[in-house]
Amino acid sequence: MTQSQGSTSTAQPMHPALAGLETPCIVIDAAVMDANIAQAAQMAQQAGVKLRPHAKTHKMPLIAKKQIEAGASGITVAKVSEAEIMADGGIDDIFIAYPLIAESKIRRAIGVSKRIANLIVGVDSEEGARLLSRVAISEGHSLQVRLEIDTGLRRTGVPYEEALELAQYIHSLDSIQLTGIYTFRGALLDGKSTKDIEAAGKAEGLMMVELAERIREAGVPVQDVSVGSSPTGAFAATVPGVTEIRPGTYVFQDRMLVEFGTCALEQCAAYVLATVVTSRPEEGHAVIDGGSKTFATDVQPNTNPLQLRGFGHVLEAPDALLERLSEEHGILRTAPGTSLAPGDRVRVIPNHICSTINLHNHVYLLEEDRVRQLDVAARGMLE
Amino acid sequence: MTQSQGSTSTAQPMHPALAGLETPCIVIDAAVMDANIAQAAQMAQQAGVKLRPHAKTHKMPLIAKKQIEAGASGITVAKVSEAEIMADGGIDDIFIAYPLIAESKIRRAIGVSKRIANLIVGVDSEEGARLLSRVAISEGHSLQVRLEIDTGLRRTGVPYEEALELAQYIHSLDSIQLTGIYTFRGALLDGKSTKDIEAAGKAEGLMMVELAERIREAGVPVQDVSVGSSPTGAFAATVPGVTEIRPGTYVFQDRMLVEFGTCALEQCAAYVLATVVTSRPEEGHAVIDGGSKTFATDVQPNTNPLQLRGFGHVLEAPDALLERLSEEHGILRTAPGTSLAPGDRVRVIPNHICSTINLHNHVYLLEEDRVRQLDVAARGMLE
Repeated sequence: MTQSQGSTSTAQPMHPALAGLETPCIVIDAAVMDANIAQAAQMAQQAGVKLRPHAKTHKMPLIAKKQIEAGASGITVAKVSEAEIMADGGIDDIFIAYPLIAESKIRRAIGVSKRIANLIVGVDSEEGARLLSRVAISEGHSLQVRLEIDTGLRRTGVPYEEALELAQYIHSLDSIQLTGIYTFRGALLDGKSTKDIEAAGKAEGLMMVELAERIREAGVPVQDVSVGSSPTGAFAATVPGVTEIRPGTYVFQDRMLVEFGTCALEQCAAYVLATVVTSRPEEGHAVIDGGSKTFATDVQPNTNPLQLRGFGHVLEAPDALLERLSEEHGILRTAPGTSLAPGDRVRVIPNHICSTINLHNHVYLLEEDRVRQLDVAARGMLE
Repeated sequence: MTQSQGSTSTAQPMHPALAGLETPCIVIDAAVMDANIAQAAQMAQQAGVKLRPHAKTHKMPLIAKKQIEAGASGITVAKVSEAEIMADGGIDDIFIAYPLIAESKIRRAIGVSKRIANLIVGVDSEEGARLLSRVAISEGHSLQVRLEIDTGLRRTGVPYEEALELAQYIHSLDSIQLTGIYTFRGALLDGKSTKDIEAAGKAEGLMMVELAERIREAGVPVQDVSVGSSPTGAFAATVPGVTEIRPGTYVFQDRMLVEFGTCALEQCAAYVLATVVTSRPEEGHAVIDGGSKTFATDVQPNTNPLQLRGFGHVLEAPDALLERLSEEHGILRTAPGTSLAPGDRVRVIPNHICSTINLHNHVYLLEEDRVRQLDVAARGMLE
């Protein structure tokens, strides 16, 4: 579905402002990104839910600010280090959607909490909750927490059926306020048709709303019911009682979301600009200067339920298959009639943009007729 | 073969100096690394070939210096940006083993060439050679080049049978000196038994020596015949006429090389230090705080010809299978009797260390009783 059947490109021609860039590099089309940001904000507003985008996709404070200016209530991050970078960048409402179980990280999170308007951290166990409470008491600071629920992905999160008891326990602890519950399922476990994704999103929302009700009936006043991903968020948002969605990838979109039917290829705002370094048209063989250190490989071609062919979609040669990556080489199998000569430049939409951005120290933002370099400020952050 | 059959670890206990590190992070055991560096230097010396390690594995000038101090004649890089960082770090003999076909990159390479003792660049086409010559003339600087030969990987490199003619053409151009030929095959195309790898290394060496002879007979005085990877280098080095090998991964070793039989697990100098964040022993389920942004996924489990199970080998739980990665979560399937509790730390040897190091802004070098942070200076370099 991401592979055009025509042998010629239907994409917009490459902007002349890109001519000065060396390759490989990531280019972000600001107009397409802004439209994605506006569309998600409008969708959330119409559904009456808060939008708290996951900044793991872009890792850039400037883009987080654009999301908030467009109506997002705050952002989501996965790491304390990302929260620190985003707070440094002026973001003042941050949810660290990850269970913090190391004292040093909890102290750092409290440090962020003391300097921004609103910080929320994840918790998914009794031990974790006890540690959060103990450190918060020792820092003389009350911490807002949300309980992560495992709704089927079997990653982090308390098992659904144990959540009520754990919520009551967390509520009993000092210096931490349990204000919500959250979950992440994504759509990978639920097939790939739009119908599957709609069903997954709604099921996720219904499970969480029902659980939140039982927690409230037990005397724990949780307000926030936070769910959703880029593919499922729009559907989860329609479930009464859901208060917040946390899509991330939507800001750029990628080939995986096109495959899911979540967006059109034309809505993909980020692509890798690469140069053909070797070409043997008669053999249907061409090599570009980007490999597994330029394109993320965590969404593999032809993996179930994804049917993506190759590691990316080449706008200039839609039938070309990016079939093999070494670290700095991408091997294209080209269709008859495709002419890619050494020195030619191509734009490649990667399978998974979040982990692809994370490979790059900086990206280039294409705004009308200028190109601006942006550091991926929170990339490669470990702790 | 990288999965122990015992359910308990046979690894050395974790060094207490690691207790202060936050996770996930990469730790490099300096003693193990130094032994790898010394072993390769001795192997090359005994074989009478030069060792020019590929710095793409570590991307750190300090480690390149250690390799040179141990006897390496210089280093290999894949990008001009890596050459610039290594030159800044005091490395004065660098081979950019990649065809440079962009004028801006050639000018940057000449800039490096003007400030270090020896710079060599790759070329694999007439067009590329013409451009190198033209830019070198315009810069008033003579550039040393090596012709890349495709010996079967079908990546970059001139087809073997066209190499003689291209060598003669390059020799005829001004301001570029063709001083050698090089190739890269790796071992992936040649099965995975030690016998397969020995055969691959020797075949690669023989093809290249035979070609170099024909090129010399045609009046082109190429001296260097540069071949080899970490798995094949030791075998290629034994072929008379081979003058140089370019292994990279050997400096740290990794799970892929253990699978190839190139090294023992105990020779792996680099591992990811991770923390168990969620654990359900009764379900054989545990989650660590490292996913596809911490562990490279370009060497996938169970991909032919590799039979690696999972995305890494957990030293503390050899039977645990790192079976699934999301961006910041690693899902372990644990064996009965394995007890991994939240807060426990594990050391995980990744499948592919080169692309794993590239995910991290810095690593921790464990030297005797101290831990030192090293920036991965050339990581995330695009152009």
